[in-house]
Amino acid sequence: MNNKARFISLEGSEGAGKTTALETVKSQLEQWQVPFIVTREPGGEETAERIRDILLHAEHLEPMSELLLMFAARHEHVKKVIEPSLRQGTWVISDRFVDASFAYQGFGRRLDLGLIEQLEKLTVGDCQPDLTLWLDVAPAVGLQRASQRSEKDRIEQEDVDFFQRIQAGYKQRQSRYPDRIKTIDANVSEQAVKEQIIDVLEQHRNRVVS
Amino acid sequence: MNNKARFISLEGSEGAGKTTALETVKSQLEQWQVPFIVTREPGGEETAERIRDILLHAEHLEPMSELLLMFAARHEHVKKVIEPSLRQGTWVISDRFVDASFAYQGFGRRLDLGLIEQLEKLTVGDCQPDLTLWLDVAPAVGLQRASQRSEKDRIEQEDVDFFQRIQAGYKQRQSRYPDRIKTIDANVSEQAVKEQIIDVLEQHRNRVVS
Repeated sequence: MNNKARFISLEGSEGAGKTTALETVKSQLEQWQVPFIVTREPGGEETAERIRDILLHAEHLEPMSELLLMFAARHEHVKKVIEPSLRQGTWVISDRFVDASFAYQGFGRRLDLGLIEQLEKLTVGDCQPDLTLWLDVAPAVGLQRASQRSEKDRIEQEDVDFFQRIQAGYKQRQSRYPDRIKTIDANVSEQAVKEQIIDVLEQHRNRVVS
Repeated sequence: MNNKARFISLEGSEGAGKTTALETVKSQLEQWQVPFIVTREPGGEETAERIRDILLHAEHLEPMSELLLMFAARHEHVKKVIEPSLRQGTWVISDRFVDASFAYQGFGRRLDLGLIEQLEKLTVGDCQPDLTLWLDVAPAVGLQRASQRSEKDRIEQEDVDFFQRIQAGYKQRQSRYPDRIKTIDANVSEQAVKEQIIDVLEQHRNRVVS
């Protein structure tokens, strides 16, 4: 395999099974013996984690403030963690990245998609994932799974209509970037999700090698 | 005097004497017996104060992150403090407002002024000050005064060249909005500054009455 480090992001809404998927990706990368870090958004860096805390736990936030905070955190994350890691030859696995802003702030909060694209250009530039795994779960299924968790953050408290818009947002992103964003059917068993992820990773690896 | 509440902002770089100026404005408004609140930027509201803490004390911040954080804080401030106060008939005095972003992030950090204008439209809308007092101090004079303070925050640690750009930024704003932004010569004695501020406030009051 050529040894250029790769950037992989995981996307999906509440109850999609991102935590389990992350473990699968990690195991696979360990098997390939590539150096990697695992990070997350919002957050992944000291200032960005402080912003995450505001985003998840503020009593109320205006949608436009939420959007600007997301992109401020992302810019710190890209400049201080993702880009330096990739430059050093370390792979990056990020639990969510810019597609989440299109889904959550764009479709979920109904903010202007053109503005989000502009902020993406300004803060992310060409630091785009090489591969994105979108865990596509039916909102009802995801919310049912998430309801078994004890405490919900500010965003997890939204209603089913909100999560339907999120799913539509991810779907639109996937249609736009079919080569980068691979859909994983996340309504099925953990084992079946795991097999799909390994398949996609192996295909990606073969594409990188060839 | 007609009893529409007014929004007054104070601007100026390090060592311009904003604290003393603020006291003068407060005394004058007390004399006029108008209800008012005193607030500040970045900050003035719970989430915005948390963002202020990041802005002033982060070890390092990318300029673009600084800009987005400033406008996120400002949007919360406008929506939760400034607009509701003005609607209730309460005057607002703010220690800094949007002109500071043009001066500091635009001229100081050399970020695109068109982008700042766009963020201004999105986050501030028509919630503009009725009157802005710009305390114009020569950077050397201001920095000499500020050097007598014990501890400096992240922005106060910049060099003289940075503060010269700030002054140029404020000057450009004043030329563009001469009716709103009134220049106060802040190189002179406290008493002389105070007299200029009272003069400007009285003129503004007369304009409001007539």
